[in-house]
Amino acid sequence: MKVKVGVSNRHVHLTDEDIKVLFGSIKKSHDLSQPGMFACDNYVSIKTDKNIIDKVRVVGPSRNYTQIEISKTDAYFLGLNPPVRESGDLSFSEVVTLIGPNGSIKTNGCIIADRHIHITYEDLKKYNLKDSLYVKISGVKEGIIKVNLKPSDKATLELHLDTDDANAFLLKNGDLVEIINRGEENEENDYRW
Amino acid sequence: MKVKVGVSNRHVHLTDEDIKVLFGSIKKSHDLSQPGMFACDNYVSIKTDKNIIDKVRVVGPSRNYTQIEISKTDAYFLGLNPPVRESGDLSFSEVVTLIGPNGSIKTNGCIIADRHIHITYEDLKKYNLKDSLYVKISGVKEGIIKVNLKPSDKATLELHLDTDDANAFLLKNGDLVEIINRGEENEENDYRW
Repeated sequence: MKVKVGVSNRHVHLTDEDIKVLFGSIKKSHDLSQPGMFACDNYVSIKTDKNIIDKVRVVGPSRNYTQIEISKTDAYFLGLNPPVRESGDLSFSEVVTLIGPNGSIKTNGCIIADRHIHITYEDLKKYNLKDSLYVKISGVKEGIIKVNLKPSDKATLELHLDTDDANAFLLKNGDLVEIINRGEENEENDYRW
Repeated sequence: MKVKVGVSNRHVHLTDEDIKVLFGSIKKSHDLSQPGMFACDNYVSIKTDKNIIDKVRVVGPSRNYTQIEISKTDAYFLGLNPPVRESGDLSFSEVVTLIGPNGSIKTNGCIIADRHIHITYEDLKKYNLKDSLYVKISGVKEGIIKVNLKPSDKATLELHLDTDDANAFLLKNGDLVEIINRGEENEENDYRW
């Protein structure tokens, strides 16, 4: 079973309230692969005491929490130590300042997104999958990574990795990687290439 | 069997001739873990048509080739597509301009270093190791990576990773990771966590 890779560059999800402060309103640029999600023609700067990263894209639609997703490489640059989290889990997330054209906010919500596969509940059941599984990456920098499953009613089957994971394995958008087991919690599990 | 991680940030190795053009001479800052290797108090900028990265450290002693080791993340920033190579193999390496305080040179030699373990010939024989092996990384972003072995007469046993690999697996200098097999080329090989 193969799954397509989607590489997530650093980006932010915003509440309606934070959108208002930073931009007034947001404007859709183009649809993303996951149903209902879209990239916006709106960008923030992420500022910390140590550094600033400009031109970080807003991903819509608005959410009921503001979340800033960066890589570990970004985290070192910004002087942060964000936890690796599933989207929406902002416990112990880092605090940053977001600067938009209309204003700025200081907010928690900065995380490193976990490696996850978007999948429908239907496929989860069909393929008898659990919470996580292992994916094999071939090529000159080969390896196996553990990946969480993120089921929803509507989803395009896709493995989302951040730029650190993608660059470590020389992966790019649309590459195919192989699911090598179904994540059974079994000490005797074999990992065959 | 465990092995210590050494994270290699971007750096350059230089010929005597290139040292002369860029700096006149180099000055040792401190010893590195591999016998005879040292970090210098000398830095270059790496320049391409697209971008520039400043403050890239020189690693001594001089070599009979000039080699620029960057990460895939750096490569995107610089607009390059360097190959993944063992140190010293500069076939199809990228061309960059190195700028020092005394002068600049345009040279090939820009690569992404392969994941490698420094090991003595003695240990290679003792542990019955081959050209490569697999290393397990534990933690919140767990996985297995294939790693080349780089034997020499004198070596400190250490796994060298670039910043992309280190950041993808949340590894830092001095972390311990586990060798899970000895790299036998065997289709039936098992990978047990």
